[in-house]
Parts: sequence; C-alpha cells; structure tokens
Amino acid sequence: MIDRIAIFGMGLLGTSTGLALRTAGFKGTIVGWNRSPQGAETALKMGAIDSIASDALQAAQQSQVVVLATPIFNILDWMEKLAPVLGPEDLLTDVGSTKGEITAKATALYNRPDRAGFLPGHPMAGKERGGADLGDAKLFEGAVWLFTDVPAWERSSASEALAKEWREWVLKMGSRTRDLDAARHDEMVAWVSHLPQYLSTSLSALLQDEIGDAPELKDVGGRALREMTRLGSSPYSMWRDIALTNTKAIELSLQKLEQRIAHLRENLRTPGLREEFEIANRFRKDA
Amino acid sequence: MIDRIAIFGMGLLGTSTGLALRTAGFKGTIVGWNRSPQGAETALKMGAIDSIASDALQAAQQSQVVVLATPIFNILDWMEKLAPVLGPEDLLTDVGSTKGEITAKATALYNRPDRAGFLPGHPMAGKERGGADLGDAKLFEGAVWLFTDVPAWERSSASEALAKEWREWVLKMGSRTRDLDAARHDEMVAWVSHLPQYLSTSLSALLQDEIGDAPELKDVGGRALREMTRLGSSPYSMWRDIALTNTKAIELSLQKLEQRIAHLRENLRTPGLREEFEIANRFRKDA
Repeated sequence: MIDRIAIFGMGLLGTSTGLALRTAGFKGTIVGWNRSPQGAETALKMGAIDSIASDALQAAQQSQVVVLATPIFNILDWMEKLAPVLGPEDLLTDVGSTKGEITAKATALYNRPDRAGFLPGHPMAGKERGGADLGDAKLFEGAVWLFTDVPAWERSSASEALAKEWREWVLKMGSRTRDLDAARHDEMVAWVSHLPQYLSTSLSALLQDEIGDAPELKDVGGRALREMTRLGSSPYSMWRDIALTNTKAIELSLQKLEQRIAHLRENLRTPGLREEFEIANRFRKDA
Repeated sequence: MIDRIAIFGMGLLGTSTGLALRTAGFKGTIVGWNRSPQGAETALKMGAIDSIASDALQAAQQSQVVVLATPIFNILDWMEKLAPVLGPEDLLTDVGSTKGEITAKATALYNRPDRAGFLPGHPMAGKERGGADLGDAKLFEGAVWLFTDVPAWERSSASEALAKEWREWVLKMGSRTRDLDAARHDEMVAWVSHLPQYLSTSLSALLQDEIGDAPELKDVGGRALREMTRLGSSPYSMWRDIALTNTKAIELSLQKLEQRIAHLRENLRTPGLREEFEIANRFRKDA
C-alpha cells in the first residue's frame, strides 16, 4: 500500500496530480519538490502537497513512489540522479510528453530485480498555460493516461506491486489508461498533440506579424480564431524539450501538413476543394 | 418603421436572424423563403418566421427589408433577380462572408435614388455546422457585424431610413457594428476567418488519412485536437463560394502559413523555435 508519494515539479501537472490524488481519496503523505520555492509554496497552499522537500534526494528515499512532473530533460536528469540512491522497494513514474528517451533510460537504469522500478506515464491532459496556480483536481477526469511499460522488464515484486497500485490511482483520478510501445506513442502524439501545438504556434506567430498592430481584428475573428490560436499561449520551455526528443516524428507531421495546405491552396477553384472538405468532415464525424 | 421583413435562406444565419429579431423585440411580420421546404418548416416551427413564402419575388415585393442569408452565389443571383422588381421604398441586406463581389453588384444594381437600397452586411458569427435546426437567438450576441457601405452611394431617403433602422436592429440583436471598405474587409477576413477555416480543414483531412483508421487516437488528443479540428466539420457548400469570391487573399494567407510552418519545422532544434513561441505568446497576450 502506497502511503508516501514525492512529486518533483510543482507545475500544472505535478500540482494537479497532488490535488487529484487527494480528491481520489489518497490518505498518505505527499511531499513536493520544486526548483523555485514559489511553485512549491503555491502547491502547498492549494493542498496539493503536505510539505515541501528541502532535500530532494532524501525526499525520494523516504517515499515509495516518486512522480517526476518536470520538463522532459529534467526528468531524464532526475532518472540519472535517483537510480543510485533508490532500490527495489521504490517506484518512479513520470508524466513526460515524449516517451522514447525516457523509456530507453528506464531500461538502462531501472526495472531490474535489484533496482527501483520505473513506470513511464503520460496523462493526455494539460492547459495552454502552466504553473502551480492553475493546478486542477479534475484535470485528469475523462483523459487518457498512457503508459509505455516494456514487457521484457523484470521488476522487483515490490516495485511491480507499486506500479500496479499507481495504475489504480490513475483510474481513481478519473483517467482511462492505455498501454503502448514507446516508439508508437511518440509517433502517435506527434499527430494528435504535437502537430496541433506547433501549428497553433505558427498560426499565432503569423497573425501577430500580419495583424498584431490591429488588435480589434481579433474580436472580429470570434470563436474560431480564439480556438485555433489558444495553444499559441503555450510556453516554449515545455515545447522545446518535446521538439528535441521527438524531432523526426514532428518534422514529418509538419511537412505533411505543409503539403496538405499547399494542395488545398492549389485547389481553391477546383473540385479538389470539395474532396478535402469531405475527408475533413469524415474525420469529425467519427470523432 | 420596418414592419415586414423577408428572409431568404433559412439556414443557420437566416433562422438565427429571425429568432434574434424576435428576442430583440421586433413585432412586425417575418416571412421566410428557402430552396428546400424542410429548412423553412423547421424555422417556422422554431418561431423564426411567421409564414413560409410560396412566391419569393412576391414576398420580397411585399416586404420593406429583404435579408439575403443564402450562400454567396445565391445572394448574387437574388441581387440580379430582385433589382428589377423592387424600388426605392425597399432595402436589401445580406449576411454573406465575402463582400467584394456583393458590394460591386450593389453599386451596379442598387443604391441610386430610383432604385432599392442594398446594405452589405456580414455578422462574424457562425457554427461549424449549418442548418435551421441549429438556429440560435443568441448567435449574434457579442459578435461584430460588419458593413461595407460605400460613401458615394446615393440611396433614396426611404431606403436610407430602412438601412439606418436595420443597423439599430443589429445592435438590438446584441452585435457591435463596424464599417469598412469591402476590399479591406475581404483581406481582413482572409486572416481572421478564412485562414483558420481552411487550415482546420487541411489538418482534419490530413489526420483522417493518417489516423482515421484508429479512431481511439482522437480521444487521446483531447481538447487541443478537438478544438483545432472543430471547423473540419464545416460544409463545403458554404466555403466553396468563399474560396471562389476571395481567392487571392486566401491564397496569400495560406502560402504565408505554409512558409511559417516550414520555418518552425526547420528550427525545431534551434533558438528560432523560442522566437516563434514568443511571437505567438504575444498574439495571445494582446487577445
């Protein structure tokens, strides 16, 4: 039974995880660590954590489960730092948006009988802005929480039991879980998450340059414009790590989109336009 | 005082106009005409109109104001057909999404002392699907209703008074009005309305081809994916006329977006990515 959890990174996802665990009935202790004290204090005030860790390594050692909720490169750093100080009674898990590098490192450093377990996770939930103050106990309700466990891993029985229990907490937080291969995960999220994000950033940046000096035009655009540019608010800090750890799949999806837009542009006055609308309608109909 | 209005085209905008007029306190008669009887019957049942016109020309002649709420090419057709049968006591207005061709025809056929007046209008409101059954009395609340009146027009005093009163009804329906030149209108809506639409269609069509056979992936994408593809439901019938009547401005906006996406793609691993996020953040911050 998990009764002590450490969350590293009190941003939107880390803080929401603490709040959601509480709402789901978790009665144990939750300790939080954050690079800047401010985020941790906000999370503490909001009730997402019971205390702020002054020593991260010690906090990890004193917990059964460590949830890494920092940007991806910090997750990879923590994986390096924590591997030597944790053991087979411990489980790490994460909420990082790309899983290739994290899962490879989990194979290299964890998930053997004599080591801590690592369960790579990715809740498909977020907001266009980050930060502890946006933390939300309901963030994961109705979302899909992906895992990229590797069948060949041989975890200690203790860490395997913790992994099973963590999956149960994820369900109690209101998410559905799904398991898939890390490479397939990264390819898939390039289409359904990364492409929409970088596209919205490109559109927002273009519009800033074209009509940014006429802010009244944003009103005119209404809901359609607001929705298509909402993700333009997303922070570089998060999306840089995603770009760097899933570059090829993102490049491919962007290039295909460029070609698709060019195709539509060349067919504005031909029956090809009807075909594009019909295919697009089909996507939404099945949605 | 307007006491008899004919609405041609009982789709989303025509039906919503009838409903909004009622909610705004219009006590006169509203007669509706629609190419297919079904839409007109729905609008009648919803209370958007008092009766269905069996003879469109006669209904126009018997009304003071005719609102053209059909697709753009049908608006242009009706402008041709109605010009000879209406006179200086009459006003036409429309809700078409491009204004260049409509405003040019209004100069050629209307807006002289011996002819009917024509006030070209464009409420910036809509939904991703059309149809009378989606008609909504609140559709225009908070929206901007654009007009592309031409200062040189010399309307009869009767049609000018009707145009003034129609603008008052637009305000009572909850919209703010703004006047601009038709060419500027078309250039502007290319950025804030047409570009987001064709982009969402391209994205939806691409995703249908790439992941359409894995509908469970749509769940995974969550809100971001839903929002970015919502306009993928929009009907070709409406957007064909827009593509044909604002081709150049739309081509330009799409081409610039293709270039912008390519720029981001080429900078996924460089500081150029930060710059794009910062410009995009600025667009949203001012929004």
